[in-house]
Amino acid sequence: MELHETLPNEKVIYFGDTARTPYGSKSPETIKEFAEQIVDYLVSKDVKLIIIACNTVTAMALDSLREKYPQVPIYGVIGPVVRKVVNDGCRKVGIIATKATIGSDVYSRKIKELSPATETYSLACPALVPLVEEGFTHTEIMEKTVEFYLDDFVKNNDFDNLILGCTHYPLIAEHIRKLYPELTLYNSSAEVVNELKDYLEENDMLAEPNEFQDRYYASDLSDNFIAMTDLLFKDRDSKIKLVKFEN
Amino acid sequence: MELHETLPNEKVIYFGDTARTPYGSKSPETIKEFAEQIVDYLVSKDVKLIIIACNTVTAMALDSLREKYPQVPIYGVIGPVVRKVVNDGCRKVGIIATKATIGSDVYSRKIKELSPATETYSLACPALVPLVEEGFTHTEIMEKTVEFYLDDFVKNNDFDNLILGCTHYPLIAEHIRKLYPELTLYNSSAEVVNELKDYLEENDMLAEPNEFQDRYYASDLSDNFIAMTDLLFKDRDSKIKLVKFEN
Repeated sequence: MELHETLPNEKVIYFGDTARTPYGSKSPETIKEFAEQIVDYLVSKDVKLIIIACNTVTAMALDSLREKYPQVPIYGVIGPVVRKVVNDGCRKVGIIATKATIGSDVYSRKIKELSPATETYSLACPALVPLVEEGFTHTEIMEKTVEFYLDDFVKNNDFDNLILGCTHYPLIAEHIRKLYPELTLYNSSAEVVNELKDYLEENDMLAEPNEFQDRYYASDLSDNFIAMTDLLFKDRDSKIKLVKFEN
Repeated sequence: MELHETLPNEKVIYFGDTARTPYGSKSPETIKEFAEQIVDYLVSKDVKLIIIACNTVTAMALDSLREKYPQVPIYGVIGPVVRKVVNDGCRKVGIIATKATIGSDVYSRKIKELSPATETYSLACPALVPLVEEGFTHTEIMEKTVEFYLDDFVKNNDFDNLILGCTHYPLIAEHIRKLYPELTLYNSSAEVVNELKDYLEENDMLAEPNEFQDRYYASDLSDNFIAMTDLLFKDRDSKIKLVKFEN
């Protein structure tokens, strides 16, 4: 995790809504409702800051969550990569993401707010997340699926930068680089950590070295999730505790 | 729907847990819990019989649901196709299904209970459901994914019958037939309706012609679900009502 590398003293309380994943093709109302339940839970754990490590939830719920929980700063994964793309002077930007994120048009809107002349091109790729979650990341099927989605999209539009607008997509960047080596890829999660570091420094919120342990919670302890956390958090103790919402 | 064709007087109260789909890679505990919430809801609607139109829920929860709700007959999709396969005298049977269904080993156990000499071969194919739900049914990617899962499985075992142990799989039977024309395919949902008809007749529970309308409920009104119901229920009025569990 980039967070651990850049900010080693910060300890993480992680919540994965594995009982109800994936979010990308759900309706905005349901995504907002589920996100509020999770933020309620994290707030009850007395966190100093919340990162929504998911583009779909950021797109659907960041504004309403900030309004509902003014007591805790909430970071999304969209703003930082948008600022990065604009700061880098990109003029033609492609965006791939889930159906919900693309449907919200939030990337285009935010880019054009900062840089009205930048042209944006958006595409939903809903099968990519389930294929990653079922272990197809390094397969020919994944490459073909990436090609299925991107081929016309890349050929019919002349953008030279592509935002990977879903936290799963950096895992399949190898295929995109191989198929479209001319594109510069932007990774939404990587940029968050840099902004977060600046924010914590400016607001004197950085943690001192401490003995706290990261804590991992999930709404379902499925085999898939346990395998994924073993992969993601292999350097840290990653015992996962089950959390059930009252449902 | 086969049910409408075979039993036109029976009216349906359908519940789709679209907010939490898919179930196939979730843990047994979570699947049981979600299934109980749904059965509670259907029982509150005063239904005379419940069909669990999902192999995963049947595999994980049928026994416990029957115990918890003795007042209403509950039908699963596994028993009927198992009886059909055994009655047809199949001696070597392949089974493909979700990870949860295969993990439960329920198909093998039930087949061997009725016919101990029958050999069974099981394989989980977890990416097939998400690909169907994201609209890949008739694509080359779906064919390649079917081949990816089945090629070694079919070649390394000598079964000649294959149970499509997931309610989504009949939608992709075209690919299986094309790749493996020597296999006889068994469809778990088709068999349920035949047994159900016998049961209703024997127990004098058949509906008279009536003016009731089918009712459709779902936990999330996502675009995907609305598109699917338009396809499945095109012959009937299919206004869908949103149901939220207390969560």
